Amino acid sequence: MSMSGTFRVDLLVKAEDEPQARRMLETWCVEQSIEVSPAVVDADVRERMVGSVGRVAPEGEGRFAAELRFALDLVGGSATQFLSLLYGNGSLLGGYRVVGCEWDVLAREGIVSGPSFGVEGVRRLCGQEQRRALTCTALKPIGYSAARLAEIAREFALGGIDLIKDDHGLFNQPSAPFSERVARCVEAVGEANSTKKSGRTLYFPNITGDGSQTLEQFEEAVERGADGVLLIPHLCGPGAMREIAGRGRVPVMAHPAFSGSYIRQAEEGFPASFLYGQLWRAFGADLVVYPNAGGRFPLTEAECVDLHRAALDPALPFRASFPTPGGGIRRETVGRWARTYGPDTVFLIGGSLYEHPDGIRAACQEVVEAVG
Amino acid sequence: MSMSGTFRVDLLVKAEDEPQARRMLETWCVEQSIEVSPAVVDADVRERMVGSVGRVAPEGEGRFAAELRFALDLVGGSATQFLSLLYGNGSLLGGYRVVGCEWDVLAREGIVSGPSFGVEGVRRLCGQEQRRALTCTALKPIGYSAARLAEIAREFALGGIDLIKDDHGLFNQPSAPFSERVARCVEAVGEANSTKKSGRTLYFPNITGDGSQTLEQFEEAVERGADGVLLIPHLCGPGAMREIAGRGRVPVMAHPAFSGSYIRQAEEGFPASFLYGQLWRAFGADLVVYPNAGGRFPLTEAECVDLHRAALDPALPFRASFPTPGGGIRRETVGRWARTYGPDTVFLIGGSLYEHPDGIRAACQEVVEAVG
Repeated sequence: MSMSGTFRVDLLVKAEDEPQARRMLETWCVEQSIEVSPAVVDADVRERMVGSVGRVAPEGEGRFAAELRFALDLVGGSATQFLSLLYGNGSLLGGYRVVGCEWDVLAREGIVSGPSFGVEGVRRLCGQEQRRALTCTALKPIGYSAARLAEIAREFALGGIDLIKDDHGLFNQPSAPFSERVARCVEAVGEANSTKKSGRTLYFPNITGDGSQTLEQFEEAVERGADGVLLIPHLCGPGAMREIAGRGRVPVMAHPAFSGSYIRQAEEGFPASFLYGQLWRAFGADLVVYPNAGGRFPLTEAECVDLHRAALDPALPFRASFPTPGGGIRRETVGRWARTYGPDTVFLIGGSLYEHPDGIRAACQEVVEAVG
Repeated sequence: MSMSGTFRVDLLVKAEDEPQARRMLETWCVEQSIEVSPAVVDADVRERMVGSVGRVAPEGEGRFAAELRFALDLVGGSATQFLSLLYGNGSLLGGYRVVGCEWDVLAREGIVSGPSFGVEGVRRLCGQEQRRALTCTALKPIGYSAARLAEIAREFALGGIDLIKDDHGLFNQPSAPFSERVARCVEAVGEANSTKKSGRTLYFPNITGDGSQTLEQFEEAVERGADGVLLIPHLCGPGAMREIAGRGRVPVMAHPAFSGSYIRQAEEGFPASFLYGQLWRAFGADLVVYPNAGGRFPLTEAECVDLHRAALDPALPFRASFPTPGGGIRRETVGRWARTYGPDTVFLIGGSLYEHPDGIRAACQEVVEAVG
């Protein structure tokens, strides 16, 4: 296979020695392309379509790093087929871990396009173009009425938080139906914004739904004046995120629910930095929510710092995604994380803002100061 | 929380002792419902919305089985929010495995509805209402023209195979664009069917695409006369499968690409029998493709037999899904698997049908006889 018209995929494979690693990689290259014995395929198609194994090198005990190449013609311009090729049947084989790929080529071909707003676009919408960290919170809990949630949103906005997202568990429950919730929260946040001298609070409702409902709710959210949308790519499908982000109407915040299995194995799946920092960025996430270290989720600080770096990495051919660590960042700890991550970060602080003895506004002012 | 208006979720949790297990389960119940400290939530909402821990019992070394209950109001009728509640943020926590849930309640509430055709419906469409195993193959490889693939499909149909599905890697590549491929294959299979005295071969194109493309391709496939569709729920989103299956127009075959991470850990994610045999069935899969033991994928025979049983289990309040083992079943081994699985099985035999010295028709006749 020639290099032109191909893209690179970086794998780690568990094997006892290099010959075994190469055999496993050859298997992978067939599995992820023609998925049939090359012997029964026409020579020209075999030559053009079967993936090929390039450099293989030991990487630690019983593990090898490899570069594979696949034809762009396998993907046919589809982001979803690219994912299938990247880790479709391969996810079922065991012993393989995908750690990188050649985004330059995939971007050039328009298979993925990255965020439409990115860090700078989100800053602009917030009216916070100076380079400081932003604050974000989650509107909770499920069970409150839309009116009550809107009142809470108003308090957050008056407290000076930069972004408010729906709790990812808010869908279209009878307690706060989607349409009413979006209408009321947009109104409440808008009223609070109108009292501010500078800066705007943005509101991102959760549009994730069943099948076509996600896109319908996206359209409705934009029409009703939402500033952005929250979606859960591994529930609604990463291709839906790619489509919605590609419309370029409002920023997309991606939430990691139902994605943990892809990052919970040391020798399979993806590193968290690749899944959230690269793949989600490529698929258009303007903001990447991830479970931060030191809270209630088990990612290490080193993994989180890698992920943060990947989301911003200028070497990738996409706008930067705003890394949005959450899942247990508290009023008391946000200052420490601000020093770790620096200004290109959105700090998602949920529960602890609800727990301040002097109420939500006081809590918001505390964290805005702490990250500032 | 009262029992009415709730449903049960069955979990396994890694813990040193029962008190630790209970603490972890309480954490889970908050994480998967209100996701904020119950102390800051109004008493009536807390009482109604926070999940509750029921029976907890040791299950092997350092592991406990638990029954939890969650309010139906958390789900609000959405299959996707049900998945988020089942294993959304929980997938990121580590140490929890979801092994069952109360389908009766979820079905009664219309949150999931199961297959529209099921085993009997698919048999009827094939004209194979006597209780025998069915045969299925995959149309390959990527890179062949639509005309060439249609010729191969014709051979399979003339050989007497019951179902032909697109290889799951066939999307909308320029070599065989979706529209042309569906049109030509439907025509070729139809012509072959018109020569048969009894029985019909069904053709299932792969409709999986980016976002709304999946639904558009579904509509187009049905209009063009496809007998069913293939889709990849963990790429297009399980909610899209639920929507498409719910339309009840043609059977849906679900493919396991990109799902391996959910079943590759012994102590997290899902047992394969739960994911493929129960959850996919609940979400509407008329046929459940799974990676069979003894081929190139690592599931054990016991796991596969459990999965097969779950897909057919009459205790579930849904039509039965046709268990469709694939991934390395060969002409030479299909007879042995037919004895293991019995007649309510679709045997998916891909590569080995392409390798017969006397061609595809001879290969088909061999396997049809072997399972008969």
